[in-house]
Amino acid sequence: MSNKELDGLRNQLDDVNLQLLHLINQRAELVQEIGRVKEKQGVNRYDPVRERTMLDLIEANHQGPLDLGSIKHIFKEIFKLGLELQKDDQKKTLLV
Amino acid sequence: MSNKELDGLRNQLDDVNLQLLHLINQRAELVQEIGRVKEKQGVNRYDPVRERTMLDLIEANHQGPLDLGSIKHIFKEIFKLGLELQKDDQKKTLLV
Repeated sequence: MSNKELDGLRNQLDDVNLQLLHLINQRAELVQEIGRVKEKQGVNRYDPVRERTMLDLIEANHQGPLDLGSIKHIFKEIFKLGLELQKDDQKKTLLV
Repeated sequence: MSNKELDGLRNQLDDVNLQLLHLINQRAELVQEIGRVKEKQGVNRYDPVRERTMLDLIEANHQGPLDLGSIKHIFKEIFKLGLELQKDDQKKTLLV
């Protein structure tokens, strides 16, 4: 049974990976859009309170099996990518 | 307009965060399951070739706006969590 079982699980894993890829990029687009709105408002883009609120919501909805520390670590990495993308956009705006 | 616009975008971002949370944990469950199947087969759990194949598929499907290096970085972090979880499971098995 087992190679078929393993192949099936691996196919599911690939599918989850692609859904994650899609969501991570979708998230980045939203962060870019938020950056543009904030820029129009002349508001500072980095907002540690908002980051805290996002993490609290994630924590409240987390059920495992990963431990919370690992989840927070991953999300902080994902948050960082969003911020870097906003910085790139800002640099592009400054260059033109 | 803009506070309403910002709130709407932030709600969408929270929603994407929770979808990501769900998928990251779902992925971890699959990795645990794969670990159990491999253990039954007496196969080594860490498989660098499989990791390469997963990254290749991700790369082939990536369209941005994040750059590929950032995407790979995040996925490598996500892969690490899965491996650590398998190690924990193995330790638990060894303790009983």
